[in-house]
Amino acid sequence: MKQGNFTLPGEAGYEKLTLDLAKKWGADVIRDSDGTKLSKDILDAGYQIYSTICVIRDHNEWARQHPDCQQESFLMAGPAAAEGAELKIHLLDQFYTEQFQINESADSVKYWQVFDRTAEAEVPTGQWDYADGTVTIRGCTPWHEYTVNFLAYRIWEEISMYNYVTNSWTGEHLMQIDPRYSETQEYMLDWMDRWCKEHPQTDVVRFTSLFYNFVWIWGSDARCRNLFTDWASYDFTVSPLALDQFEQEYGYRMTSEDFINQGKLHVTHMPPTQHKRDWMEFIHRFVVSFGRKLIDIVHQYGKKAYVFYDDSWVGLEPYSEDFGEFGFDGLIKCVFSGYEVRLCANVPGVTHELRLHPYLFPVGLGGAPTFMEGGRPALDAQRYWIHIRRALLQQCTDRIGLGGYLHLTLGFEEFNDRIEQIADEFRTIQELHAEGEPERLPVHVAVLHAWGKIRSWSLSGHFHETYMHTLIHVNEALAGLPVEVSFISLDDVKNQDLSRYQVIINAGREGDAWSGGDGWKDPEVVSNLLSWTAAGGTFIGINEPSAVEGTTHRFRMAPVLGVDLDRGEKVCHGKFTFTSEETVLPEDCEFPAKAGIYLTDPETRVLRAVDGAPVYTEHKFGKGRGVYLSDYSWTPASLRVLQQILTPEGCELPASDNPEVETVWFPASRTVVFLNNSEKNQHAEAVVDGKKVAADLAPLADQYIKI
Amino acid sequence: MKQGNFTLPGEAGYEKLTLDLAKKWGADVIRDSDGTKLSKDILDAGYQIYSTICVIRDHNEWARQHPDCQQESFLMAGPAAAEGAELKIHLLDQFYTEQFQINESADSVKYWQVFDRTAEAEVPTGQWDYADGTVTIRGCTPWHEYTVNFLAYRIWEEISMYNYVTNSWTGEHLMQIDPRYSETQEYMLDWMDRWCKEHPQTDVVRFTSLFYNFVWIWGSDARCRNLFTDWASYDFTVSPLALDQFEQEYGYRMTSEDFINQGKLHVTHMPPTQHKRDWMEFIHRFVVSFGRKLIDIVHQYGKKAYVFYDDSWVGLEPYSEDFGEFGFDGLIKCVFSGYEVRLCANVPGVTHELRLHPYLFPVGLGGAPTFMEGGRPALDAQRYWIHIRRALLQQCTDRIGLGGYLHLTLGFEEFNDRIEQIADEFRTIQELHAEGEPERLPVHVAVLHAWGKIRSWSLSGHFHETYMHTLIHVNEALAGLPVEVSFISLDDVKNQDLSRYQVIINAGREGDAWSGGDGWKDPEVVSNLLSWTAAGGTFIGINEPSAVEGTTHRFRMAPVLGVDLDRGEKVCHGKFTFTSEETVLPEDCEFPAKAGIYLTDPETRVLRAVDGAPVYTEHKFGKGRGVYLSDYSWTPASLRVLQQILTPEGCELPASDNPEVETVWFPASRTVVFLNNSEKNQHAEAVVDGKKVAADLAPLADQYIKI
Repeated sequence: MKQGNFTLPGEAGYEKLTLDLAKKWGADVIRDSDGTKLSKDILDAGYQIYSTICVIRDHNEWARQHPDCQQESFLMAGPAAAEGAELKIHLLDQFYTEQFQINESADSVKYWQVFDRTAEAEVPTGQWDYADGTVTIRGCTPWHEYTVNFLAYRIWEEISMYNYVTNSWTGEHLMQIDPRYSETQEYMLDWMDRWCKEHPQTDVVRFTSLFYNFVWIWGSDARCRNLFTDWASYDFTVSPLALDQFEQEYGYRMTSEDFINQGKLHVTHMPPTQHKRDWMEFIHRFVVSFGRKLIDIVHQYGKKAYVFYDDSWVGLEPYSEDFGEFGFDGLIKCVFSGYEVRLCANVPGVTHELRLHPYLFPVGLGGAPTFMEGGRPALDAQRYWIHIRRALLQQCTDRIGLGGYLHLTLGFEEFNDRIEQIADEFRTIQELHAEGEPERLPVHVAVLHAWGKIRSWSLSGHFHETYMHTLIHVNEALAGLPVEVSFISLDDVKNQDLSRYQVIINAGREGDAWSGGDGWKDPEVVSNLLSWTAAGGTFIGINEPSAVEGTTHRFRMAPVLGVDLDRGEKVCHGKFTFTSEETVLPEDCEFPAKAGIYLTDPETRVLRAVDGAPVYTEHKFGKGRGVYLSDYSWTPASLRVLQQILTPEGCELPASDNPEVETVWFPASRTVVFLNNSEKNQHAEAVVDGKKVAADLAPLADQYIKI
Repeated sequence: MKQGNFTLPGEAGYEKLTLDLAKKWGADVIRDSDGTKLSKDILDAGYQIYSTICVIRDHNEWARQHPDCQQESFLMAGPAAAEGAELKIHLLDQFYTEQFQINESADSVKYWQVFDRTAEAEVPTGQWDYADGTVTIRGCTPWHEYTVNFLAYRIWEEISMYNYVTNSWTGEHLMQIDPRYSETQEYMLDWMDRWCKEHPQTDVVRFTSLFYNFVWIWGSDARCRNLFTDWASYDFTVSPLALDQFEQEYGYRMTSEDFINQGKLHVTHMPPTQHKRDWMEFIHRFVVSFGRKLIDIVHQYGKKAYVFYDDSWVGLEPYSEDFGEFGFDGLIKCVFSGYEVRLCANVPGVTHELRLHPYLFPVGLGGAPTFMEGGRPALDAQRYWIHIRRALLQQCTDRIGLGGYLHLTLGFEEFNDRIEQIADEFRTIQELHAEGEPERLPVHVAVLHAWGKIRSWSLSGHFHETYMHTLIHVNEALAGLPVEVSFISLDDVKNQDLSRYQVIINAGREGDAWSGGDGWKDPEVVSNLLSWTAAGGTFIGINEPSAVEGTTHRFRMAPVLGVDLDRGEKVCHGKFTFTSEETVLPEDCEFPAKAGIYLTDPETRVLRAVDGAPVYTEHKFGKGRGVYLSDYSWTPASLRVLQQILTPEGCELPASDNPEVETVWFPASRTVVFLNNSEKNQHAEAVVDGKKVAADLAPLADQYIKI
């Protein structure tokens, strides 16, 4: 059994369990978790120690003395219809009052806005007043609807609120303070220094995380408790002071409506406005500059600083140009999926550590039971592992580990055994990489969307939160495919040398950030991509690629793809009939019929049709080609199909004869890896380096064969 | 057996058959058809005679002498991508050259436009030249796409082209001439006069139809022969002279792009632009004024003038305010469906005559065999009849009849018997109406869309051409339901007294003419409808009612409906969970799950959910309510569901206990009609005026029971 590179969550009161499992799993590090402590026996057992801190909470006493240093958010009350000339809107009616408290200060109210949403016009400030939680609007147009944008303090730190409600925590609600204020900064720096002094046994300070949580707005109605969540949005970074400072720096004033956006807010899945981009940059620069001061203190005490790439990670932006300025030594990502492995592993200059799921909590993030009656944590762990291992086989991380309450593993021996095997396999993968990289296709893939590099790999959150977006399935597939992958924006199409890419993928729904939205209205974007394709590139469009209204084509890449989308404006136009070549696809890889897709060129090859509609096509364009897929869902066999599309003519990697089984070949160590991504038994054979190799694989299992 | 009110297509050479069937079917009129003649024996047999004329064709000799008086259309060539600075586009490559010939005259070319469709910018006229069927564009931006809008003569009249190709006609291609030119007008008036003189036995001159055919553009590629068809579009009314005259009259110049619209053209299913409305009005006024002159001649000869509401009907517009100015005596509509019955029957001031399907042609309009091997014309006739009879039971016409080649009925005795029964039942329905109207709900329904009254009942063409639009299913249902129906536009919502309506229905897809499109951005439209609902109205929204981007709601009527549509901008927003009441619906009435529909109010009642998504909801708004349906498909049982939604509380009409069977009650004649709209045997019972009445019905059959 191999040892090391494994972080174990210890738990005071369970010292024997802690040390037994540390041995079983080959841990070299013991950590505390949100809700657990380490005892002297554990601290002295010879392991390295990670200590978790959350710099914005755990300061209730100070927060109570400085209530105006609490964090805030813009909220929208309404819409409510006026029946006469006067309308009263109670601001907090829709919101969870344990989370929010109106900021009634003059500094705050100056940023409030009232809108007639029927006419979509702002109501002049002279026409409304605020008192006692209520805005009264005068001079209303009857039967128009009105809303109020206002600022509220967030009086319960959201992660502890979630755990309190979901995992039955008790105790005082934790408040959260905003380092935007100089008094908070002074307090935090002092606190950080004291903390380091008081924790001499800590080797690594694990920041969980920095200052601003992803947005998570709760509602008053139990039937809609979660009003808004977006893992990558900056709504929780706002305050009158930040808004004032932004205006000084950028020369224009952000309004409440820049955030509220007609109540839609700005989800990461939609293309960002320039105002949103400016605000993100403004916040990120602040988070880097103040974060750096805290990290410097940690380093002064000879400790390392790791950061958790979740929870209050907003402003961290590991894919920004200046992430290195933080000075973090490590990046820890909690992962269910392969793309999350790559999200962590592809950040340069830090130790990469994965936090595996399931967490040692009673209830999983998806809401299902885990370490409690009805839970099957060993199976969960293996189901996540099949995604994680294939990503690790392409790009490995430095460490893995767990989090939560260790005592919950009692009675779940199968889970403990499973983790032992996983930890072992992880170390095997590290060794393979150390001997030499796996064989890959000579293909550099660019995934093209509105965000580009800053939203590499992840869209916004976990797979189970984003499964409805085509691109997450594509990213998850790419995470374990033998190709180089970059993420580029529509602007990059104008500014980069595209010849470095052999394939460009655009996958999303019309108007969303992943398809690209209005950025496609720039003719230079389109003509550069036509030129690149004509010179030999492969453009893969999935679902509603490059779709935007406004000219002859709805898919701006229709000239390349040879297909386009009719949303009704061409319902009276004839469409080319075609003969489908009915390419045989593996059973669990099916592309759905999509209404409105039609051929723009009779030469477009229909490789697959469903209900008479093309769902998989190929179209030559100059020396290159366009490939269209009506959608893409991650299945064991769809990985194979995508790899085939990515493979240049005349190029071949070892591949099993079974589309449910992936094959990775490490020539330096002469090791073939067979991955059964399915939940059935599978037999697979492959010819590797002239030798026939075979494997019989249990559901979700793998096999490493040296030849 | 009853007699009369039936028009039979006679055929020279089949005199006995003509007179036998005239007797069998109770005909009082014999007509000729497109392609057949009447002989002396038929003309002298004592029947009234209809004679078919088509004033724009059958003048090949004159047309050859006046080639510049032929009709025209704008076409768009391309798009084609420029690889360098120069690009050549062959104008007719995509088009059927038996239909089109480029109009190369200077008058024509001055209206041509060349566009860079990648930049969506017009190319200055100095940058392109025309010669020998080809436009050469200079100074292109490489990898931009270009198109050319140009004018072409239509050298083969489209209806005869269709019949020539589909029904194997032979002989010379018929040309068509444009009465826009004064020389054509002179010729036509003279011809009309001569024609009347030469046809003393004709009682009714049947215009088939007027001057301009609905648009029907054919392509060069057999795989896409039909490039564009729209029954109600005005693309075939254009000419340099008309454009010049329009400019003088309206003070602005229509461009080719006003018609071409980026190659999309303007389908009737999309909201019209103001330019399109102006053009339609301009053409309609011309058609009325010149049409009147021809009709006056017919009247001078003591004949009646009927017009066919199909083929070259463009500009006729029987639902315009000034249709009466034509002076037509009768309106003939070919019908497959109930809504087409109402389309004809609801036009005031004319004799209403229906032309039943199937036509006596080898191949039906849908392309399937009819009077040939494989055809089942008797079944076809009965399938159409179930739609027609229920509309006639609400509003009857004056006459019915057939068209085509009578000899084709030889060997189809079952068809001949079926028509005998249908003719008989038609006369029964006339008698019932004469005794007194059927009992109806005290409900006036307004169908609300972008066009309003001018597009009453029909969207654009037959059901099999428009089945993909929700509204045609709704119109078809309404055609036979016991309610008054009007069609109103979004502008009418501002200008009419809405209190005359108890129900307003809006049914379509976002952005289409039936949902309403940008007209919903007018706040007065929305607030008037909120006010009307609050006062007690029922607003029924189906599919994507009132949907348009731009404010808090996507469905502008969300405050009333209590549901809204998320297209992705609210993917991170929580949605109200709900308990579905799971209203029992008849087996063949199902509303489909629709992605993105969510409740905006926890008080919205979910009467039906599919896959966890609301598909049928009700929401109180003031004294009124909003009802949402995810879609609506005509099925025998869905008629019942719609009728239930339309029925005011406390109101009840006799209804069978079987949702597949409709019931109509004529109190004056004490007759209950049971209609089996299904293709199965049905038993039905109803309590009518205190009496229990029962019927056993064969598939598609009906029963008239006097109590």
